[in-house]
Amino acid sequence: MTISNRLKQKMHARTPGLLNAWLTLGSPAIAELVSRQPWDAVTVDMQHGLGDFETTVSMLRAMNGTEITPMVRVPWMEPGLIQKVLDAGALGVICPMINTREECRQFVSVCRYAPVGSRSFGPTRAAVVGGQDYWKLANESVLTLAMIETAQAVENIEDIVSVDGLDGIYIGPSDLSLTLELSPGADLGHARLLDAVERVRAAAEAAGKFSVMHCSPIDYAVKMADKGFSLRTASSDSRMLVEAARELFRVLRPVAPSQGVAGY
Amino acid sequence: MTISNRLKQKMHARTPGLLNAWLTLGSPAIAELVSRQPWDAVTVDMQHGLGDFETTVSMLRAMNGTEITPMVRVPWMEPGLIQKVLDAGALGVICPMINTREECRQFVSVCRYAPVGSRSFGPTRAAVVGGQDYWKLANESVLTLAMIETAQAVENIEDIVSVDGLDGIYIGPSDLSLTLELSPGADLGHARLLDAVERVRAAAEAAGKFSVMHCSPIDYAVKMADKGFSLRTASSDSRMLVEAARELFRVLRPVAPSQGVAGY
Amino acid sequence: MTISNRLKQKMHARTPGLLNAWLTLGSPAIAELVSRQPWDAVTVDMQHGLGDFETTVSMLRAMNGTEITPMVRVPWMEPGLIQKVLDAGALGVICPMINTREECRQFVSVCRYAPVGSRSFGPTRAAVVGGQDYWKLANESVLTLAMIETAQAVENIEDIVSVDGLDGIYIGPSDLSLTLELSPGADLGHARLLDAVERVRAAAEAAGKFSVMHCSPIDYAVKMADKGFSLRTASSDSRMLVEAARELFRVLRPVAPSQGVAGY
Amino acid sequence: MTISNRLKQKMHARTPGLLNAWLTLGSPAIAELVSRQPWDAVTVDMQHGLGDFETTVSMLRAMNGTEITPMVRVPWMEPGLIQKVLDAGALGVICPMINTREECRQFVSVCRYAPVGSRSFGPTRAAVVGGQDYWKLANESVLTLAMIETAQAVENIEDIVSVDGLDGIYIGPSDLSLTLELSPGADLGHARLLDAVERVRAAAEAAGKFSVMHCSPIDYAVKMADKGFSLRTASSDSRMLVEAARELFRVLRPVAPSQGVAGY
Amino acid sequence: MTISNRLKQKMHARTPGLLNAWLTLGSPAIAELVSRQPWDAVTVDMQHGLGDFETTVSMLRAMNGTEITPMVRVPWMEPGLIQKVLDAGALGVICPMINTREECRQFVSVCRYAPVGSRSFGPTRAAVVGGQDYWKLANESVLTLAMIETAQAVENIEDIVSVDGLDGIYIGPSDLSLTLELSPGADLGHARLLDAVERVRAAAEAAGKFSVMHCSPIDYAVKMADKGFSLRTASSDSRMLVEAARELFRVLRPVAPSQGVAGY
Amino acid sequence: MTISNRLKQKMHARTPGLLNAWLTLGSPAIAELVSRQPWDAVTVDMQHGLGDFETTVSMLRAMNGTEITPMVRVPWMEPGLIQKVLDAGALGVICPMINTREECRQFVSVCRYAPVGSRSFGPTRAAVVGGQDYWKLANESVLTLAMIETAQAVENIEDIVSVDGLDGIYIGPSDLSLTLELSPGADLGHARLLDAVERVRAAAEAAGKFSVMHCSPIDYAVKMADKGFSLRTASSDSRMLVEAARELFRVLRPVAPSQGVAGY
Repeated sequence: MTISNRLKQKMHARTPGLLNAWLTLGSPAIAELVSRQPWDAVTVDMQHGLGDFETTVSMLRAMNGTEITPMVRVPWMEPGLIQKVLDAGALGVICPMINTREECRQFVSVCRYAPVGSRSFGPTRAAVVGGQDYWKLANESVLTLAMIETAQAVENIEDIVSVDGLDGIYIGPSDLSLTLELSPGADLGHARLLDAVERVRAAAEAAGKFSVMHCSPIDYAVKMADKGFSLRTASSDSRMLVEAARELFRVLRPVAPSQGVAGY
Repeated sequence: MTISNRLKQKMHARTPGLLNAWLTLGSPAIAELVSRQPWDAVTVDMQHGLGDFETTVSMLRAMNGTEITPMVRVPWMEPGLIQKVLDAGALGVICPMINTREECRQFVSVCRYAPVGSRSFGPTRAAVVGGQDYWKLANESVLTLAMIETAQAVENIEDIVSVDGLDGIYIGPSDLSLTLELSPGADLGHARLLDAVERVRAAAEAAGKFSVMHCSPIDYAVKMADKGFSLRTASSDSRMLVEAARELFRVLRPVAPSQGVAGY
Repeated sequence: MTISNRLKQKMHARTPGLLNAWLTLGSPAIAELVSRQPWDAVTVDMQHGLGDFETTVSMLRAMNGTEITPMVRVPWMEPGLIQKVLDAGALGVICPMINTREECRQFVSVCRYAPVGSRSFGPTRAAVVGGQDYWKLANESVLTLAMIETAQAVENIEDIVSVDGLDGIYIGPSDLSLTLELSPGADLGHARLLDAVERVRAAAEAAGKFSVMHCSPIDYAVKMADKGFSLRTASSDSRMLVEAARELFRVLRPVAPSQGVAGY
Repeated sequence: MTISNRLKQKMHARTPGLLNAWLTLGSPAIAELVSRQPWDAVTVDMQHGLGDFETTVSMLRAMNGTEITPMVRVPWMEPGLIQKVLDAGALGVICPMINTREECRQFVSVCRYAPVGSRSFGPTRAAVVGGQDYWKLANESVLTLAMIETAQAVENIEDIVSVDGLDGIYIGPSDLSLTLELSPGADLGHARLLDAVERVRAAAEAAGKFSVMHCSPIDYAVKMADKGFSLRTASSDSRMLVEAARELFRVLRPVAPSQGVAGY
Repeated sequence: MTISNRLKQKMHARTPGLLNAWLTLGSPAIAELVSRQPWDAVTVDMQHGLGDFETTVSMLRAMNGTEITPMVRVPWMEPGLIQKVLDAGALGVICPMINTREECRQFVSVCRYAPVGSRSFGPTRAAVVGGQDYWKLANESVLTLAMIETAQAVENIEDIVSVDGLDGIYIGPSDLSLTLELSPGADLGHARLLDAVERVRAAAEAAGKFSVMHCSPIDYAVKMADKGFSLRTASSDSRMLVEAARELFRVLRPVAPSQGVAGY
Repeated sequence: MTISNRLKQKMHARTPGLLNAWLTLGSPAIAELVSRQPWDAVTVDMQHGLGDFETTVSMLRAMNGTEITPMVRVPWMEPGLIQKVLDAGALGVICPMINTREECRQFVSVCRYAPVGSRSFGPTRAAVVGGQDYWKLANESVLTLAMIETAQAVENIEDIVSVDGLDGIYIGPSDLSLTLELSPGADLGHARLLDAVERVRAAAEAAGKFSVMHCSPIDYAVKMADKGFSLRTASSDSRMLVEAARELFRVLRPVAPSQGVAGY
């Protein structure tokens, strides 16, 4: 009777201002440091991030003993890996490129034990840190977040959010920009993008699902503060290192770093 | 002319009491230790276990120079990874969640070179330890074991075991329990489960295939001793560590460990 | 405005004698050494090679500061991993076992950003070493090479090479031999194989695509020198180590190494 | 104001029956499992164990969020590494082969910040998990345990335990046996050994220092239960795996494992 | 004829405002990112940092193809490791806790080939990236920096800087504070500390040696801008991540991170 | 009763033409490949090589099941690490820079259990692969080879080889060249060097010790064939890769590789 998902509880309670950290550099040292800051959740990005599964396990271990909820963005709708990150103790899974109801249904299915879904039993690390009853609690506790990041997904949004067992959607504005023929980054404030984002958010809310917004850089998170999202991701480890270097060089030397903002 | 699969030979000879070790902790040190104990086979679990492919390779290397047959349970029916573990020298592959004849056919196909199957040529490590003739011997020597672990698979068992090139089935009682709406672990002795297990075993035998039973804890392996299985898996590295700790605390201190039985 | 692909430029310029190195041993030290030799490209083999994604990233890093074009052969048509190796900075992807036009179309799609394809945005390492404009240049610069290595693919070659966005084909003679019921290695000079190879090359040329030939051992690369290929892969790290050992023992001791030619 | 050392507090309170786990296999997965069992301390053995410093850091991370006190046995009196394991968050250091007062003084010195000792400032991980005041609390909290494991050390025991800042001694009966010309293991109950052990324990007690006894196998820990030690180490990860395998084979097959009791 | 040390050249040219980055987190991804920012040098800290030698090699590889000069701070005056980091291609070595002329002489000796010193020949990676003439150029090019960080070292400073082959001194104000019975961090501006620092700098200058100042946080680097140092280290990877998080939470939420400034 | 050292037996039997392989690249894959070629011994170079202790353990594991004798060259006379490589199963240790009798005595002492020496008991991996009696056999079986590679060592050679328990000397001609003010590599055939080498060899023989000669490149091994050495090291993994690349480019393209002969 140990497993619990504080983030899910806070989102259900509609706690305002919830924030999610984003880790792309594949560093357990960073995971340990960041999970001891006042974030509500910390996500290991396995899609555009640099770490393998074992590094992800090390990063999840580094978060032991903290208040944050550990999540993983998987690289793709791969049933094997999604189940592995759950067995490794992730309490939330963000799945990229969910464009149809069927894709969403498959994603949710592999996150839930029978009879609800098809997740295979074997919570190797999850039960060590989450207790012997992990498997009884997992279907209820594990967060399933489907990424909405294409024009096609926006079209299908009502169908997607109608899937039983889906907890919420996660909006990726960079890829959404590309499929709307906008620039990722430069057009984050474009009306066409913002309209699509709002349509998705509203559909999720209407279906009783959470909506999470990927916000990078920080001022985008500020702009999104009052839009009604359940959770915002703000910046990322690599971006924070680059922003800090920019500030350092601004103070110590009149030269801006010419490189380095990796990821989105 | 080096490759040979002692386990397959012993199963063909119907040697009684064959035992398979199960490694979930992703530790080459454990693999080296365990492969020097009198097991007939040692399986690296990549599905619910904690290691990546490179760690699996290290674990297979650690088994060099021993009598055991090295096997790998892959995370899912992923053709890329199945072929990689074969190239890495696994002499048996256990594939989870085979529910239909078609899934079984695909699994077997990627384990066999043309013209029988579609395995790609490139036995990088397999030929180093298995000899230049590895590729000529592999179709005959490599064990293909399809996991039967859902009610659906039990329904389809005759179809599944009819697939050419399949060597045998591997019964996973935990997931089978879940899909039979029983408790994994607590209901291992339930009649509904045992009936399904026997139906599967009998179908395999009728089709001339091996049947392997996953038995954890040890007393389940005792109970299954006379059921006619070709091979039993007994316990696992993590379970053995937990059982040993239980015994230690029982002797040294009247407190039972409250946690730690990972996996099934 | 930093990313550029010298290999693609040289192939467009029909520079003769272009050579590609092949790394199967999963060693960043070897990658660093080999990328400082006068190869035109260096490919990390993730299909039959021994390294995971993180090792591949380390190998790509080890090539920093050199003239070669870094490429990766992925294990299978897995969208998640293909996009990860591109985010990690590979400037070419070789995808095995492309047997139909549809498989080819899917492969190319995941290598290209919208609106041309479906690659997800997040060039974590690629933008660090390739510059902030990486994403604008990637669709043009990244090489997509579909492996033609089955009799079925030869049958479908005209369809396959007609896919928009495909840069070229990569011929794998070992698997092609197997599906032609020839011996991989021993029959590399067989007329049936050579005819198939030439049919593929000619179809690629007719469609305005590059054709790359896998040549191992070295004398096969010599034999293929004048056949009109855009690029030849010559030998591999493991084969070079074995050939060098053969030569060493030939000189120092009248005993030939009995083992060790791994891969093809 | 976060760092605290429960083990030290319990030993000061003369809590009976304190137990220390011993990890030689270099496995973070084992460290995570074992640290969630009711041990009072868990020690990573870097002397005869198989892990490097980074693995030790991963093992310490795996213990986050538990009640146990993490300790490290270093390979030798190497000032650089001793300080690194302290920076990595070890709250106790066991230093092998302390044979003279001067060696003991040097060992203690590198574990204490000036003005008491010469430890260099930079508690990279220790402050992340132990709080900003770590450095103010470390001299008081970090346990320093000098291994007494040679006849020479027994001779010098009064001198050794007189060193200021030394918290206690750690008795290694295997090496002590060897230098007493006894068999390590077979002679653990020999009077000559037990006399030396008692002399060391009594000298430590007289000097107001802790005395810790290395007890492997378990029945040796039973035998040492009432001898007045502050703490006993009982068994080890590798020994527990071997004992568990012995028990398994005893039950399942009348053959004893012929190999595998690694370490002492 | 490839090896060259831009940092040494710029220090000889008395270029003002030179800056050194400091990496403690043991992350090759961070090393790659930071080495592409406009630092003059990047130092991997192996003393209080979290990486082993192999990780240091990976971090040095990640710096390939950049303008920065790679340096390593070693954990202690250990001849074996100092020579290994040089063989791995570090062009500068910072050695902690040099308190006497004899310690300085030993440090410098292991950094120089005979007949000047006692460095062993075998520039495994250094020659791969630095060219075949590396060994002829190394004695001239490799920077040797002795850390001055105790009251004793300040007393002996004239003796220490008189050592032939020493390039400069590196001032560690945290440890220096401790030995002056000041607080590391809080007393960075204390007159007693600043007097000692200036005495050391002046002695180095008088002896024709470089003086490098460790400056963390950034405003300390500002304060030290005009003091005549050859080079300043500014902040560190972990500190930059923590500062960036502080700024993020300041903007997004009125709560300061309570933890995390690791190292000095 | 398992441990045995074939190399030592063959050297005692004065078997001619014994050859030792040399691994600097820190690759378990290479170790596995090379240990399956007809070498008599394979040495992992931890001094100028790129691997840490854990990688060395993986490389030793990769040699399991072969005929070769595994050895390690340690980075320096560091008692902690020397004992770790022995616990890891190395059957020979080559220690660099032994210049005096006292240094030699210390080196030999840490390789032998009491009462002969001071090696600490705990053969973690050595007993797993070498059997429970490993510790009884180790003093007799483990090879201790002191490197003679300075003019000072040549002066002291009679004293050095008189140390009890030393098995032999290992001549490093590159460093010896440097201390004789010759060029490492270019002057390998210089009379001054060859005279020193012969003096060392003769002294070893007179004292009843083995003499091993480091020979790289191959033609140096040819030249040394009849000089009476007990064993020759021939080439190295990195050199073999470079030689093989030279040959490849000579055949395929009239351009010699401009870089890459790492180590000596």
